[in-house]
Formats: sequence, structure tokens, C-alpha cells
Amino acid sequence: MSESAPHPQSPAPEVPGDPTRRGFSRRAMIGGAGAGILVAAGGVAVGRASAASDEPRPQVVAFRGERQAGIVTEAQDRLHFASFDVITDSRDELIAMLRRWTDAAERMSRGQETVEDGATGLGDYTPPADTGEALGLGAADLTLTIGFGPGLFGPCAADPDRPDRFGIAERKPAALVDLPMFAAEKIEPARSYGDICVQACANDPQVAVHAIRNLARMGVGVVSVRWSQLGFGRTSATTQTQSTPRNLFGFKDGTNNLRAEDTDLLDRWVWVGPEDNPPSAQWMTGGTYLVARRIRMDIEPWDRAHLLEQEQIVGRTKASGAPLGKTDEFDDPDFVVTSGGSPVIPRTSHVRLAHPDNLGGVRILRRGYNFTDGSDGFGHLDAGLFFIAFNRDTGRQFVPMQQTLSRKDAMTEYLIPNGSSVFAIPPGLAPGEWWGQRLFE
Amino acid sequence: MSESAPHPQSPAPEVPGDPTRRGFSRRAMIGGAGAGILVAAGGVAVGRASAASDEPRPQVVAFRGERQAGIVTEAQDRLHFASFDVITDSRDELIAMLRRWTDAAERMSRGQETVEDGATGLGDYTPPADTGEALGLGAADLTLTIGFGPGLFGPCAADPDRPDRFGIAERKPAALVDLPMFAAEKIEPARSYGDICVQACANDPQVAVHAIRNLARMGVGVVSVRWSQLGFGRTSATTQTQSTPRNLFGFKDGTNNLRAEDTDLLDRWVWVGPEDNPPSAQWMTGGTYLVARRIRMDIEPWDRAHLLEQEQIVGRTKASGAPLGKTDEFDDPDFVVTSGGSPVIPRTSHVRLAHPDNLGGVRILRRGYNFTDGSDGFGHLDAGLFFIAFNRDTGRQFVPMQQTLSRKDAMTEYLIPNGSSVFAIPPGLAPGEWWGQRLFE
Repeated sequence: MSESAPHPQSPAPEVPGDPTRRGFSRRAMIGGAGAGILVAAGGVAVGRASAASDEPRPQVVAFRGERQAGIVTEAQDRLHFASFDVITDSRDELIAMLRRWTDAAERMSRGQETVEDGATGLGDYTPPADTGEALGLGAADLTLTIGFGPGLFGPCAADPDRPDRFGIAERKPAALVDLPMFAAEKIEPARSYGDICVQACANDPQVAVHAIRNLARMGVGVVSVRWSQLGFGRTSATTQTQSTPRNLFGFKDGTNNLRAEDTDLLDRWVWVGPEDNPPSAQWMTGGTYLVARRIRMDIEPWDRAHLLEQEQIVGRTKASGAPLGKTDEFDDPDFVVTSGGSPVIPRTSHVRLAHPDNLGGVRILRRGYNFTDGSDGFGHLDAGLFFIAFNRDTGRQFVPMQQTLSRKDAMTEYLIPNGSSVFAIPPGLAPGEWWGQRLFE
Repeated sequence: MSESAPHPQSPAPEVPGDPTRRGFSRRAMIGGAGAGILVAAGGVAVGRASAASDEPRPQVVAFRGERQAGIVTEAQDRLHFASFDVITDSRDELIAMLRRWTDAAERMSRGQETVEDGATGLGDYTPPADTGEALGLGAADLTLTIGFGPGLFGPCAADPDRPDRFGIAERKPAALVDLPMFAAEKIEPARSYGDICVQACANDPQVAVHAIRNLARMGVGVVSVRWSQLGFGRTSATTQTQSTPRNLFGFKDGTNNLRAEDTDLLDRWVWVGPEDNPPSAQWMTGGTYLVARRIRMDIEPWDRAHLLEQEQIVGRTKASGAPLGKTDEFDDPDFVVTSGGSPVIPRTSHVRLAHPDNLGGVRILRRGYNFTDGSDGFGHLDAGLFFIAFNRDTGRQFVPMQQTLSRKDAMTEYLIPNGSSVFAIPPGLAPGEWWGQRLFE
């Protein structure tokens, strides 16, 4: 697995449901079936095999660039998100790990092992440097996005007495603060907080799990997994060509999300500008802030609510996703029109309360995933939404939005947020740069 | 969603990594790109759009037939497995639920809602009969496989004093017995046992989760979710055209598995014959028995073992999956050849101990999945293999195999089985038949 393309490993062509899946070889398919089936990068479908299209789709998202990948990248279908505690007090050890992580992350983003020949080629008497379960799976559009939590800089929600272990307290951006307590949440510390996060998104979950596992392994003695979360299906569209997925309430979610194409809005609401920080925190310019919330959904009572109640809570029709009173998903909601003296879109509906018109224009970029983590021990599924959002200033965007929603949104009755974290997401990497270099140097 | 085909819901064509994924519309792709991209049922790739191929791939696995689907069906990529306790003592209530389940399962297997127009079409003042999150996702090759645990018939591991609530004790097949205790396991009752299981396999995890959720919901008052498990990636090939996937030890798993094409071997080792049971349990003829084991893998110490140790534990090379001393994955292992006086394939290796030559010829059909369930609270990922196997007589196949492996297999050092269940899997359904009808009538 030393090249970026998926390896043709399969002894015979096969057509699984998921073309990013193991053993899938477009070459083998073409050879075996005599008919071209190619899905090109960038969302364009192409037809029969030709000299030009006989290459496998690389499925590689660029690791370096102005921004980190995994923010406005077209949302992949699967997620493994990990939050780490830094368990060393040694700045040098932490930096050395971040350098190793950067090399490995860049390689894995290309579909390669963590180090060259890492899985099987380093000799019999060496523990393999790569754990091997992603051999042959290709890159599967893997993105790895790193973030730094408040605890890396000193006191934090997880440890109010924490010292400035790495001498970076003065570099902490003012906007990186733990979230306040919101109404109706039951935050569990074992599902919350952390000093470093890595968001792994891919179209093959085994590729995402492999990446987190190998980073965790490379960090032994330096970091420890505080919590991790798998998401089985995206609940956000982040480009204009992606359709809007459904959450576990059965509704289309995030219709009004910011998209990669909204570059002006992203500059205003997502990317940190130089004017946002003093010189000590200019390392964040071009970055953003990530809010992660594990929101258990009370699906059993929800499923007993009648359709009208569900739609009045959401403020959209369930079938099409159109705002109440409109016909198309992307129609603008009309918050003024009434029926029988009451607003057609109720005052307590999610779409009204979360709409920028009713929040002073505030926008965020959502990038969440549905999860189901077994059962809860009381006969129910433990299911919900792993909410991820990016914003330029959490205290001015997510926090007021969530304060409004947690107090007024009728949906709150059916939600139990039990995990909560914030991270500073630095900008993308220039060639040769390592994760955190602008923070530490 | 009242037809079997995925709905063209997306406002614009898109090409996600997973063609079973939400919003994916082959019609839209064809229309948008002018080039046909079709993947036909049955593993055959077809080429450009034509009058004949202009239909979406149905992605529908037949629900009825001689056998239940989901056993020798080409292993789908994703799993949601649920085990239910029956919480009523009413035979009539249980039967009524099984009849409702059958109708819903057949519809969902076609990509339809649990009942016609169930998600949004039953009126404003009715709770939707379908939870809606699979709208537009198609069937995604969903299979739903039902099984009955020992506790349905009376005393069982979960409740040794349980009465024969449903008057079926005499119909219990002799082969349906809880597993004995094996060496080096730490079985947790909250991850084990159950009166009814449903195995949902699909190529879109949201389709599998939707199916289990809706069955659980339809069973309120009759059954309660005892435990459930998501599997993110298959670890078994069940047809000769599927490549062998890798487990979380990084090795190819199940190279020597039974395959759908091995019909004689399946008759011998998987399907229950009329001679296996007295008249009272003939309802099992054509069925099989399912063993489910949640096997936590101790991946951190495994990852510190050197390559040679890993390969000697498994008995195969990590890169190719070939038996030690051979070159190709599918070469027969040579258990006789020695090197320096010791067998090339060690006496404690997994491949030797699990090989039919060393187990009196015994075979089983494996159909497991990799899982990662967050972290364990001690800085590690909670990851492993959700082992599923089908066999004709668990006491004569899986049990002696596992007794040998649990005592001698060097891999045992790295495994912590913590969930264990057995279920009788009845044969497939004739037209009009409902799940369990042959047992209850």
C-alpha cells in the first residue's frame, strides 16, 4: 500500500454496494466485466472505460492547503472523532508526537500506511508501524482535522487547576473558551472536553477507524484517548451538490447550512481573520473553532408524537423538508404569515429559532453525523446526533444560538445533550509544516 | 417511498463515495451526466445507459424463499444486530407482533416504509408509522434475519427459572442450548442472551439502523431491546466473488470460510435437516443456528507484538494472507512441514487449531463485523470483532471448535469475549407466511 490508489487485491471482480469498500478494484471490474463503471472525483459521473478514465478514482482529498481538510470538504459519509488528553508535561515530547502525527496523517490521507511499508515491510522482529486493517482500502476521501482544546493552554472545564504545561498560555486565543452550561443538558465529563481532537471523515468507516487508531497508537505516553465517537451517516450537506440528509427524527437536517461555495459567508462566519486576535494568537488566522456536542435523541417519545406536532416542532414538513406554508425544501421560510391568528411556523419551532433572521444574522457551518451506540440498558437504542459545527467565534455564534434554542426550542423536550467540547482548529499546513507548528514555534 | 427503487430526491446529481447513500439517484446521475453508471444486482457490472439498463439497480434481496436472507447472501458491508427480551406473557400479543414485523420487514427489504405512506402520509394527527430516516435511501441490499433464543421456550442462561410462557417448550429443538463457559471469556449479561434476535445487514448503515429501530418501536409492550451492536465493516466473505476483508488485527479473516456456492457443504454443516429433529421441532428444518460473540480485541498489546509473533499467532502472513510457508492466500496450509524441528505453522496458531483437518472436519459459516464502540474509559478504543457464525448443530460444531481455541489458541491472549448468544434461525418464508408461523402453529 505504498501508492495512493486502491490496490486491486480481489481475486475476482466484485460489485459491493460501496465502491470505496475493501477489495473493490475498478481495474478488476473493468477487466472482468468489459464495461466501464467509473465514478470520477469531484462529483462528475463518467462513462465507459477509456485510456483516460482507466485510472482508479484517486479518492484523495489534499492534506495541505490554506485550510485544513474536513471543514468545507464535501461531507463524507462516515466519521470517527477522537478527543485526547495530553498526559505528558514535556513540550518536546508533545511536539515530537505532533510531527510524527503530521507525517502519518498526510500519508494516510493519500491511502498509504502510516510509514512506508509500515504494515508488513519493516522486518519480522519489529512491531508493524501500521496496524494493517486499511491495506487495500484506498484513501476513501479520508480527511484528518486537528484541533486544540482549552486544556492544552492551562485551566479548563476538565481540570480548572491545570498549569500551563507547555508555555503557551499567552498564545491562547480569547475565543477558545469552554462552553457555558445550557438549559436541559446532562453533560458527562467522560464524553466531553479534551486537549487535542482529531476528526476523521471518510467514505469507508474502516479507513476512518484505522486512522484514529494509528494516531492513538503513535501517541502512547503522550496522549490518551479521552473519548471517541463513531458516526454512521452524515447529517449535513457542505456543498451545493450534496443533497440534504435526514437525521434520526426522520427530518432533513441542515437545509440552510453554509456551503463550500459560500466563500463570502465562510469568510464572515467561519474563518478566523487577522483582526480577531492579538499578535500572540495570530497562529489561528485562517483557522476556525469546532463545537462538538453528543446529542442523545429521545427517539421513543418522538416516535409517539403525531406528524403535525413533529412538523410544528421542526418548522418544516417531514416529506419534502419545505418550511411550513411553502412547497420546496429550499424556499425561504415565512415567519410572518399566520393561520387562524397563529404563525404558520410556530414561535417555538426549531427552524424559526435557529434561523439567522432571528439570531442577528448569525450563521454556523454544520457537519454532524447520526450515531447509534448500542442500547441504553433500559430497552431503548442509544441513538442521536453527533453535532459538529465550525464557527469563527463560538461565544458570539454557537453560544447565543444554543442559549436561545435550549430555552425556547420545542425540540429540546426530545434532546439530551450529554457530550460537549470545543477546539481551536488551526489553518491548513504549508508544505513541510507540521500540526501545531505555528502555535509552538 | 412506496416503490422499491431509490427515489430521485436530490435537487442535483451527486456522486458520493457510497452509491447506496442518501440522495443518490441513478436516474439523476444519468440525466445529469449523460453517461450511464449502473451496478447490476448479482454482482455483474453493466455499462452505458440503455433502454434496458436505465432502471436503477434495485438493490433488493428477496425476503422470502427456502432460506432466510442474510445467511449466505453476499455479506453486506454494515450491520445492526439487535437482541430483544420478550416482556409479555401473552402468546397472542407475541404472535400479533411477529405478524406485524413480517409485513414491515418484507416492505423494508424492498426499500419501502414499514407501512404504505407510513412516514408522512397517514394524516396530521397520527404518529407516523415509519420513522422516516430511510426515506430516499432505497433498499441498500437490506436483509433482516430473525432468530429465537432459548429463553423463548423457558429456562435459559438469562433466567434459569423462566416458565414456558408461550406453550412451546416441547417444540424447542435439542440443539438450541446456551453456550457453555469457555476459558478466558468475561461474558457480560447486558451484552448477551435474548429471546429474539434480528440481524440487519445492509450496504447503507442508516437503512440497517432504521430497520432495527422500527421493529423495536413496533414491538413496544411486547419486546424490549436487550442489547444491540453496530458493525462498521464486514469481516467475512460469503461468496466466491467477494474478497477477504481484514479484521482489526490487520489480518485477512475467514479465508477458509464456507461460501454460498458450496451447496453440498452448506447442506452438511449449516442447514438443519429433517433427520435432525423429532416431529415437534420440524419447524427448524431448513433453518440453522446463529452464534453471536462480541469479542473485544486487545489491540494495544497486539500492536506492540512484532510481525513474526503476529504471523505465528495467526498462522498466515499479514501481507498476502497466505498460510505460513505458502505464497497465496488460498493455498492449503501445510501442517506437517517443519523448519529447524518446529512446525512452520505453529501448534498454537489460529489457522491450525481452527482448520477442519484438526477439528474432525467441522466447518462453520462465518459472517462477522468489525466494531468500534468509543473508548473504554482507560485511554483505549473499545474495538473488536462481532463474531457471527451459522452452523447446523452448535454443540457439535462451534462449541468443540471454541473449546479448542479458547484453551490452545495463542490469539486468546489478545481477545476478551464479553458477549455471547445463540439463536435458532428458522427456514425462509413461503408466500403469506409470517415469522415464527411454523413454530407457533
